Amino acid sequence: MMAPVEINNILEDVRVALERDDVDLAKLLLDNLTPAKAETTLAEAIGDLDLAEQTELLPQLDWAEAADVLEYLDEDEAAEIARQLPVETLSEVLNEMEPDEAADILLDLDLEQANAVLDTMDVERADLVRPLMKHDDDTAGGRMTTKMPILRRWMSVNQAIAYLRHRSIDDDDHYYLYVVDRDQQLIGVIGLRELIIASPNVTIGTIMNREVIQVSVDVDQRECAQLISRYELFSLPVVDKVGKLVGVITHDDLVEVIEDEATEDLYGLANVSTDSDLDVFSPTSVMIRKRLPWLFLNLCTAFFASFVISRFEATIAEVAVLAVFQSIVAGLGGNSGTQTLAIIIRGIALGQLELRQSRPTVLREIGLAIVHGICIGICVGLIAWLWKGIPMLGVVITLAVIGNFIIAATAGTLVPLTLRKLGMDPALASSIFLTATTDSLGFAFFLGLATYFLPYLK
Amino acid sequence: MMAPVEINNILEDVRVALERDDVDLAKLLLDNLTPAKAETTLAEAIGDLDLAEQTELLPQLDWAEAADVLEYLDEDEAAEIARQLPVETLSEVLNEMEPDEAADILLDLDLEQANAVLDTMDVERADLVRPLMKHDDDTAGGRMTTKMPILRRWMSVNQAIAYLRHRSIDDDDHYYLYVVDRDQQLIGVIGLRELIIASPNVTIGTIMNREVIQVSVDVDQRECAQLISRYELFSLPVVDKVGKLVGVITHDDLVEVIEDEATEDLYGLANVSTDSDLDVFSPTSVMIRKRLPWLFLNLCTAFFASFVISRFEATIAEVAVLAVFQSIVAGLGGNSGTQTLAIIIRGIALGQLELRQSRPTVLREIGLAIVHGICIGICVGLIAWLWKGIPMLGVVITLAVIGNFIIAATAGTLVPLTLRKLGMDPALASSIFLTATTDSLGFAFFLGLATYFLPYLK
Repeated sequence: MMAPVEINNILEDVRVALERDDVDLAKLLLDNLTPAKAETTLAEAIGDLDLAEQTELLPQLDWAEAADVLEYLDEDEAAEIARQLPVETLSEVLNEMEPDEAADILLDLDLEQANAVLDTMDVERADLVRPLMKHDDDTAGGRMTTKMPILRRWMSVNQAIAYLRHRSIDDDDHYYLYVVDRDQQLIGVIGLRELIIASPNVTIGTIMNREVIQVSVDVDQRECAQLISRYELFSLPVVDKVGKLVGVITHDDLVEVIEDEATEDLYGLANVSTDSDLDVFSPTSVMIRKRLPWLFLNLCTAFFASFVISRFEATIAEVAVLAVFQSIVAGLGGNSGTQTLAIIIRGIALGQLELRQSRPTVLREIGLAIVHGICIGICVGLIAWLWKGIPMLGVVITLAVIGNFIIAATAGTLVPLTLRKLGMDPALASSIFLTATTDSLGFAFFLGLATYFLPYLK
Repeated sequence: MMAPVEINNILEDVRVALERDDVDLAKLLLDNLTPAKAETTLAEAIGDLDLAEQTELLPQLDWAEAADVLEYLDEDEAAEIARQLPVETLSEVLNEMEPDEAADILLDLDLEQANAVLDTMDVERADLVRPLMKHDDDTAGGRMTTKMPILRRWMSVNQAIAYLRHRSIDDDDHYYLYVVDRDQQLIGVIGLRELIIASPNVTIGTIMNREVIQVSVDVDQRECAQLISRYELFSLPVVDKVGKLVGVITHDDLVEVIEDEATEDLYGLANVSTDSDLDVFSPTSVMIRKRLPWLFLNLCTAFFASFVISRFEATIAEVAVLAVFQSIVAGLGGNSGTQTLAIIIRGIALGQLELRQSRPTVLREIGLAIVHGICIGICVGLIAWLWKGIPMLGVVITLAVIGNFIIAATAGTLVPLTLRKLGMDPALASSIFLTATTDSLGFAFFLGLATYFLPYLK
């Protein structure tokens, strides 16, 4: 990898210059790079500074540079800086940004500040941004850009190319060009390659593809991600209730959508709020807000499991060795269930579980749980027997492990599938519900069986 | 979402027809769709059948259709079908496939069968496929296609367009066109849009972008995914040791690379083999092979934790109530550490932790652990005290929770960062090492403190 290494070196120099408040040197260093890279590098360097430095530095850049920096930064970070900027500065910067990114930043401000900024912005730009602010961040409407080339079916290939030539050069890259009729209804799509190789005088209507994969504005980004990967799309057009083309999710947003969904699934499994904006750069206050409540929830389920154990305190007082093994049954069950959960959540994310009915999957996971449970259970049982010299301890622990594995597989499949049926995020809370189940029932199986066979354990 | 719903209906009909072995009806239904969709729909329908039916059906399709189906299916599934097909049939089908996908399938066959197929294939196609089989599946070389348009700097825009027009229409979509010199050295890149809007007689050399983000054949796909999302690339060129352009990771593979990396991280966190080919469609034998060993590993760490508990059996025999609370300390620590792990793994995956040094991140996670530990620890302590009426039990449990949270944060950051420094997959085994630590030390802290303060607990 040659280019990135070189970039990282220059980035280091830029960083040092910025730390010395030497904006001119930093810009000089960046001028040696091509524009596309200079933007990214500048943004990376500025992203590393603290908030006060960032707020001081941003107004010294020209508006377009500042816009690139804000687009590059995380939503949380960008919003924090935006809040500190004077209305006039912020309006100028937002004028230069992609409308969808500008809308995201405005949505993170107070209503009052947002309105003041919108009133100060270019009227034309503000009109592009305002409709985007109506849509939820996680929907197709919230992700789309409204600034895209639009073709008409009567255009000749030559006219279409002339039209593209007249559009501003700093637009997003559009590989697919969408075709609308006089009522703005989406009626076709054509790739740049098809356009480039077509004869110049053919009309768009005769070469366009009439089957367009499209989404409505209120569709969740999770579904968008599934369509994108299922049909290997370069971009995804967004239509309103009556089929009018209102925007496009472009390639850069599309990669983000896929990554955000993956982040949310990973966070869901780890009991962190399924919020893809959360990352190593997030402010500490945000970190606490997104993580502490889940620890409290975990506390509740842990106490519930403890309550189950406490029902068997008398048994444990008689055979203290049970306390040594109780966690093994609960822990192994949780682990086995988490495996199931990961496979199911990924299957939902990639749209695989939409293709086939879920019943065979549930049944197979239960079958696997029985196989795994027998292998692991017998192994645990043998070790327990040999270690403590109590054969019945081995039997009890083997049965408890098998039972808990079956419960784990059932919960690991049914919880995410049910959440999805209810239209909720399948990763959210699946994991905590699963461990609550495997812990409580794991302890109940093991200690319950132990109580039943108590005479043989002493 | 209009189009996909319609597709699902047709898909259902196709499925029913295939179940009745009525291939002709199935094909008739599919003919009503445009080619691109028919391929996907046919593949989806066939993907739902069992192996015997798939193997029977595939030779009845024409070669190009069969190739599309194999490309659509999972690698494991495709390989299983391929193994059952006669050498001649398979060669014809592979002739129609993308060379990178054909190479993947051949790599999954016996060496003997693979060589027989390669010898029967079109000489020209086999020559495209052979070099791809040298590269590991998870590297840039394993992911790239070698069939891409290549421009020269002396070409005029008109010549470049004429060249594109003469290339086969069923190629992959290429948005970026790469430029090489007479030694095949990669020297520039130009987007289709730039080409389309340039004046026809300008030469490529004057309008191409000379800074090309590129990777070498042996670069891990994880790094490719980071570059793709950091620079929002449509495709990524692959060069050999001396800078010769040997292939391109195209858009469809690129989305797959990002998704595969996300899958591997999720599986890593859930203690499943970090193998993105594993999914709800995988054969049961593969499922067991990828999951059971991790359960055995978990068994070892669980026994290690039990061994820690067993050191304190005498204490538990005196105060059985300790058995009720020991799992809370271990469980909460594990949960808190998993949160840290998820944030760090995601930060590594998105390349964020490359941009900033990891020390501040580690320190902040430890700081967060102290804050979270105090909040949760005091809460647990109060409940324990009020529930059992033993004040010292509250103190012991609070201290143990805070201590275990700090350990969890340290392990949750250092383990994945260290694995990455060693060039290993940071998600792999991080999770099991983390819970081994939080379980063992959680029990040790809690039961150790309890033993020390034993007189106050009775």
